[in-house]
Amino acid sequence: MALVEVTRLRRMVREILHAHDVPDRAARLQSDLLIAAELRGHPSHGVFRLRRIVERLRTGVADPLATGRHDWNGTALLRVDGEQGLGPVVAMSALDAVRERARSTGVAAAVIRHNNHLGMLSWYVEQVALAGQVAIATCTSEALVHPWGGRRAMIGTNPIAIGVPAQPHPLVLDMATGLVSMGKIHDYANRGLPLPPGWALDAAGEPTTDARAATAGSIAPFGEAKGYALALTLEVLVATLTASATGTAVRGTLDSDQPSSKGDLFIVFDRPPSTVVESIGAYLQAVRDTEPTGDAPVQVPGDRSRLRSGLAAQRGIEVADEVWRHLETLHDSARTYPAVQESAATPADSHGTIPERAESERR
Amino acid sequence: MALVEVTRLRRMVREILHAHDVPDRAARLQSDLLIAAELRGHPSHGVFRLRRIVERLRTGVADPLATGRHDWNGTALLRVDGEQGLGPVVAMSALDAVRERARSTGVAAAVIRHNNHLGMLSWYVEQVALAGQVAIATCTSEALVHPWGGRRAMIGTNPIAIGVPAQPHPLVLDMATGLVSMGKIHDYANRGLPLPPGWALDAAGEPTTDARAATAGSIAPFGEAKGYALALTLEVLVATLTASATGTAVRGTLDSDQPSSKGDLFIVFDRPPSTVVESIGAYLQAVRDTEPTGDAPVQVPGDRSRLRSGLAAQRGIEVADEVWRHLETLHDSARTYPAVQESAATPADSHGTIPERAESERR
Repeated sequence: MALVEVTRLRRMVREILHAHDVPDRAARLQSDLLIAAELRGHPSHGVFRLRRIVERLRTGVADPLATGRHDWNGTALLRVDGEQGLGPVVAMSALDAVRERARSTGVAAAVIRHNNHLGMLSWYVEQVALAGQVAIATCTSEALVHPWGGRRAMIGTNPIAIGVPAQPHPLVLDMATGLVSMGKIHDYANRGLPLPPGWALDAAGEPTTDARAATAGSIAPFGEAKGYALALTLEVLVATLTASATGTAVRGTLDSDQPSSKGDLFIVFDRPPSTVVESIGAYLQAVRDTEPTGDAPVQVPGDRSRLRSGLAAQRGIEVADEVWRHLETLHDSARTYPAVQESAATPADSHGTIPERAESERR
Repeated sequence: MALVEVTRLRRMVREILHAHDVPDRAARLQSDLLIAAELRGHPSHGVFRLRRIVERLRTGVADPLATGRHDWNGTALLRVDGEQGLGPVVAMSALDAVRERARSTGVAAAVIRHNNHLGMLSWYVEQVALAGQVAIATCTSEALVHPWGGRRAMIGTNPIAIGVPAQPHPLVLDMATGLVSMGKIHDYANRGLPLPPGWALDAAGEPTTDARAATAGSIAPFGEAKGYALALTLEVLVATLTASATGTAVRGTLDSDQPSSKGDLFIVFDRPPSTVVESIGAYLQAVRDTEPTGDAPVQVPGDRSRLRSGLAAQRGIEVADEVWRHLETLHDSARTYPAVQESAATPADSHGTIPERAESERR
């Protein structure tokens, strides 16, 4: 593990993105998102993801400049063609428009397709909740989860996140509907550990505790039949509203060369009265104060992430050795292109055009 | 068990409601909802509930005439004071308004407080989906579920339902966020059966398999920590948007004399294109066709209820003996008031004023 200062890590990520033609505002959004995931203790959604983002920028299935084409379908529903822009860039542009609209409509929603990976959803809904509005976010992703009673992956790990203002901290739910993430399965495989029973099936659809076998198979839904029903319904809800792909046809969140065919949904409600926000805070405190069954106090969604974030911001972020080595390599090559860092709009530098470089470094 | 013809059972429920001043349109909605739950095999939300509804009409905490006061907060958000009307009457009035509004706004929502029990949420979202729109419904309810790692009930069984049009049948999710219903715990207690471990805690917050002890305690959330997070977040989301009560302050869904203090939330999206509706149908069929792990085929939310409904509509509805006896008693006393059956608006009949009768029959 490398322990890296937060500001240094953030700057490295931004400079790598600059070197791939990403304008500074977009680079800041993408780096803030990845760093926020690291701070909250979710390295699977952290700087580890940068490698894939850079590969997608190089192969042209992520557009560094696109922010999404907006088309209001009715006064409260924003239809967005993400035009293969970076996930947080397209999503924040849509979310800004919807948040502003919700002030006059009370509720407004954005349905987005052709957008890259959103990353950690809590980052979005927490910002909305901190600004006093209420947000619901969900999206589809590549099929990794098997139906309850079925043998192969047909459903994404489809997360749902909800942010609600409360005193002194907003409530922030962010949960995938898979029992565990495929990242965790890979982590068990890398460390040679067996999986707990019930987590996964192998490629033939048989239950397995062999993590390596599970990486070629499928993950169980969380919460058995009910969790399966929720995961499938989120897939259908998002795909219906965004007119995007379903099941095994979803592409672009795990590969480096397929245009994204998943969908994203954001719903925003305008500010609740401050008296309500205060009473919700009191309720959440009463929940935390419930007498615990064991030694650990009862937690409320968002509590653990906030605690970790505060500690990590002071101590620095632990980055896995392999991820760190790759980040340094990316950063070293980024520094050899100073012209690109200065202006993302410059199409060429002393080493040749950007497209040529991207082509030569593909894969 | 009494096996009762569907049309007979529906007529009995309506006549009982007529006798308690419920106008015919409202009585039809309430009886359709209860009968639909019976047909789908959810007797806990069926005619068993009529006893409580009648008691609440008699004590005055359910208003037979109220349909809810509508107040648009922004062009797409309908705020409803249910004025203690019957659950499906207030909710369908709000849902009609929101469905109509969504045609021009793309998305619209209703936030409802002071409304009686909604009953089975799938009934609402399925009707919307059958009419081609998309609906999300959720509500709070009295605290029966303990936080993950906590010893006492602090959260409702807060259900969520989602209806999405699909060919040939809509997708209809309807799930409570408790692991099981309190009705099921009571059923185990009545039959003297032990509970499976992990379902419930006793009044002291200790794990118990004694169903009787569990009825005085609390139910586990479904899906462990994630399910708890979702249940709590739905409670906070609904309470925030509707400015209604939370946790142990929620009243009016299990008692006969407390005004309802829970909240209901409906979100409606306007019609997706027919090409999307067809492709979703194909995806759902592919999910059903997933090779199963056992003998049972993979199911999609709504499949089992639809199958059961079809069978029960032909065979009749099995009503538990005790519920049936009480229903007959209610119906017999309803028939002694013929004037009330003819016109719900008639404030008096030959036996005296309605309020006096209600008073004399209280409890």
